[in-house]
Amino acid sequence: MPGIKQSRILIMATNGFEQSELTVPLEKLRGFGAEVKVASPESGKIRGWDHTDWGEEVAVDLTLDQVRVEDYDALVLPGGQINPDLLRVEDTALEILRGFLNGGKVVAAICHAPWLLIEVDAVRGREVTSYKSIKTDVMNAGGKWVDRPVVADKGIVTSRNPGDLDAFVEKIVEEVEEGRHRDRPAA
Amino acid sequence: MPGIKQSRILIMATNGFEQSELTVPLEKLRGFGAEVKVASPESGKIRGWDHTDWGEEVAVDLTLDQVRVEDYDALVLPGGQINPDLLRVEDTALEILRGFLNGGKVVAAICHAPWLLIEVDAVRGREVTSYKSIKTDVMNAGGKWVDRPVVADKGIVTSRNPGDLDAFVEKIVEEVEEGRHRDRPAA
Repeated sequence: MPGIKQSRILIMATNGFEQSELTVPLEKLRGFGAEVKVASPESGKIRGWDHTDWGEEVAVDLTLDQVRVEDYDALVLPGGQINPDLLRVEDTALEILRGFLNGGKVVAAICHAPWLLIEVDAVRGREVTSYKSIKTDVMNAGGKWVDRPVVADKGIVTSRNPGDLDAFVEKIVEEVEEGRHRDRPAA
Repeated sequence: MPGIKQSRILIMATNGFEQSELTVPLEKLRGFGAEVKVASPESGKIRGWDHTDWGEEVAVDLTLDQVRVEDYDALVLPGGQINPDLLRVEDTALEILRGFLNGGKVVAAICHAPWLLIEVDAVRGREVTSYKSIKTDVMNAGGKWVDRPVVADKGIVTSRNPGDLDAFVEKIVEEVEEGRHRDRPAA
């Protein structure tokens, strides 16, 4: 996969991210040769959530105010009940998300992370999925909610839960490669 | 307060309820002489959330399928990020909530608990408040979101966060007394 190999991907999260929803994309995308960074409001480490209790910590590579959107091809938003609820009230997090969306870059959100898409009014008119508990919020925000492991609509990739992670990462790779292909000057 | 003294109040919650948002109404309303019960999907104990980590446990008095809506004058819904997100996918919890609403009983929701009101489409056209992070979800559900310690609109009482608990409980008492006054046969 030549496209994903030269790509740079940002994962944005804070404490209470659903653990596998950060670590699986991080490891898989790095495994494909992408450069993957984790950004969070504060430096140091952030602690994951493992289904029903605290999980392991992950190192933060840069703080949100250090993020330059132009440095990345895609943004990945892990879920968890706590993490996106904290990020959706952080102005800098929303600015970063809007930067990726306005720049036509790939944005991928899983589980409860579509709350962040709702916060910037990005699900309106789009086919999206999410964790089942926030389906009503997604639909009230104008999203066309579907029950599928992964959906991509105009650059936004969404999945339902950790069980969808393989399909989620596969679709991110596909979308990044398509995007980079589109950007390449015509021969 | 004669009205509140003979009243019966149900608190519905599960693990991850914001601790003070359950314990303060429980203790204060019992202090006023109300009979207050805690209902949850499973029997035993449920564990609170104390701002940023797990808190203390509270005993469950009855399971959701044991609840008879007609036995109560009011329903209190504590918040927390985890608790209402778990309850909004429990059919029995939503049936109970609809039972209180359809019966014209008082329903009080604080912090993230208005997610449950959203789930049963009860904020539409009503003046409500909530924790700041779910303001967009409330507005997308047709609620008229206001930034006040407590709001009551047609029997639904809402507050923003634990700092509003005094005003929240005071308004619950007021609404229960009004409701019981309304129900009393004319002399």
